[in-house]
Amino acid sequence: MNYGAIEAGGTKFVLAIGNKEGEILERKSIQTRDPKETMDEVISFFKEKDIRTLGLGCFGPLELNKGKEKYGYITSTPKEKWVNFDILGTLQKALNIPVSISTDVSCAALGEVTFGEFKNEPTLLYITIGTGIGGGYVIDGKIHNGMLHPELGHILVTKNPQDTYKGFCRFHENCLEGLAAGPANEGRTGLKGNEIPDSHESFEFIAKYIAEALMNYILVLSPTKIVLGGGVMDRSFIFLKIRENVLKLLNGYILTDELQDIEHYIVSPSLMNNSGIKGALALALKAETED
Amino acid sequence: MNYGAIEAGGTKFVLAIGNKEGEILERKSIQTRDPKETMDEVISFFKEKDIRTLGLGCFGPLELNKGKEKYGYITSTPKEKWVNFDILGTLQKALNIPVSISTDVSCAALGEVTFGEFKNEPTLLYITIGTGIGGGYVIDGKIHNGMLHPELGHILVTKNPQDTYKGFCRFHENCLEGLAAGPANEGRTGLKGNEIPDSHESFEFIAKYIAEALMNYILVLSPTKIVLGGGVMDRSFIFLKIRENVLKLLNGYILTDELQDIEHYIVSPSLMNNSGIKGALALALKAETED
Repeated sequence: MNYGAIEAGGTKFVLAIGNKEGEILERKSIQTRDPKETMDEVISFFKEKDIRTLGLGCFGPLELNKGKEKYGYITSTPKEKWVNFDILGTLQKALNIPVSISTDVSCAALGEVTFGEFKNEPTLLYITIGTGIGGGYVIDGKIHNGMLHPELGHILVTKNPQDTYKGFCRFHENCLEGLAAGPANEGRTGLKGNEIPDSHESFEFIAKYIAEALMNYILVLSPTKIVLGGGVMDRSFIFLKIRENVLKLLNGYILTDELQDIEHYIVSPSLMNNSGIKGALALALKAETED
Repeated sequence: MNYGAIEAGGTKFVLAIGNKEGEILERKSIQTRDPKETMDEVISFFKEKDIRTLGLGCFGPLELNKGKEKYGYITSTPKEKWVNFDILGTLQKALNIPVSISTDVSCAALGEVTFGEFKNEPTLLYITIGTGIGGGYVIDGKIHNGMLHPELGHILVTKNPQDTYKGFCRFHENCLEGLAAGPANEGRTGLKGNEIPDSHESFEFIAKYIAEALMNYILVLSPTKIVLGGGVMDRSFIFLKIRENVLKLLNGYILTDELQDIEHYIVSPSLMNNSGIKGALALALKAETED
């Protein structure tokens, strides 16, 4: 018997059936509309399948504290129709199987340590740098949530005085997401993402912002592996700039084997664009053994 | 039978005997000198006692990865005589009992969740703001180390343009420690710590730097409780300024019950100055059951 997996995003939902080995046997992408329409399609996809459990990696913020009344709800998202939507309850009720939920980015981290090249990495931080910036953290195979769940795209960075772009985050003047996610690059250059030449100085700015954030993540979380995914990171030259800046900023303050081999410390996702959906599959496997 | 505990600092070592209930039955402070002299005194104190295990909270950086050759060593400390000193091995060899080691600040966090008012707090971040700034993080009763261990005092903060003080960290121009620890306050004001009046603008600067760091810790770690200890935090009015600035900086981006009750979220140590030594005692108890 197989397992179900959902990667629920703001523009599309990826639905998949997979097995214990992490193989995706069937996959379907559907467009994200309002909750009723979208969930009807999700449910009818899985209803026909014979699955033991379902894992759901979802856009947030989510309530992930099992003690709370709204456990499994999407809470204060800017996607208005989805505010306060009980996505976990809806799936559990309709499918009548165990469903396990986490953020999309935490699932991506879990996917990498469960089915990726970084299997059994003690502590892995996954960050996606795309239309937004988010991250998830897995410690000894377990997703870390804490009070809410990491929202590490919004940490503050030092604005480069030569960067005249004001940032697009409506909450914070100088947070990482507002200055370094895809829309920031477009806002700064006035060009569409794929039209911006590699040589544009915007990449210098964002590489430094991302490096400053990584320095802080390293000092706070001390991960043994950092994986950077998302559209912005598709340009591999940015990795070089980021690694260089991380070492410059740390300035020898911490010395570890990992930092000395930084090409293997700050890396691309080993599962390419499948970290998230495979992580949701890993979550489904956990749903079988955990309460 | 009782347990031994050491809080090893750069100026003094606190040695204690305690029981399972977290009571300190005997305590002695000795001055930190060179390793040989200091450790001789430490060892002769514990040799006479009948203890099952020993917990050691130590200044760092430390090698805490059990797979590494230098596990249990103090590594690249600025205290030159202690560089590359095998403090764990020295104690184990001399006392021939299980010894467990962690950083002093991680022990403080562990003390608070084991014997303090914050018993069973799911995730607690302890930060000390004194002659330096350091922190430790406990998740489900377990100290988090990762690649090295948290070094979160050195995260970068946005320099206030009105603050002309250059910071004292020799590694980073605008890290939290360099701008907000005790020596920064003294450097900025030209006064001894206890002579600086509460009304001095230096406290406005440091409250904002600390708040910015806390905002970042909240977004990255998402702790369910934050405890601020250390000499600088003895002035309770700073708590008010910090809490106010944290909420201002987060600007409603994350909404949790904990943040709505911020007086009980960002708090003083419940064990006063005993968080560290009681945490070392908690570590000794763990040494009995864990390998």
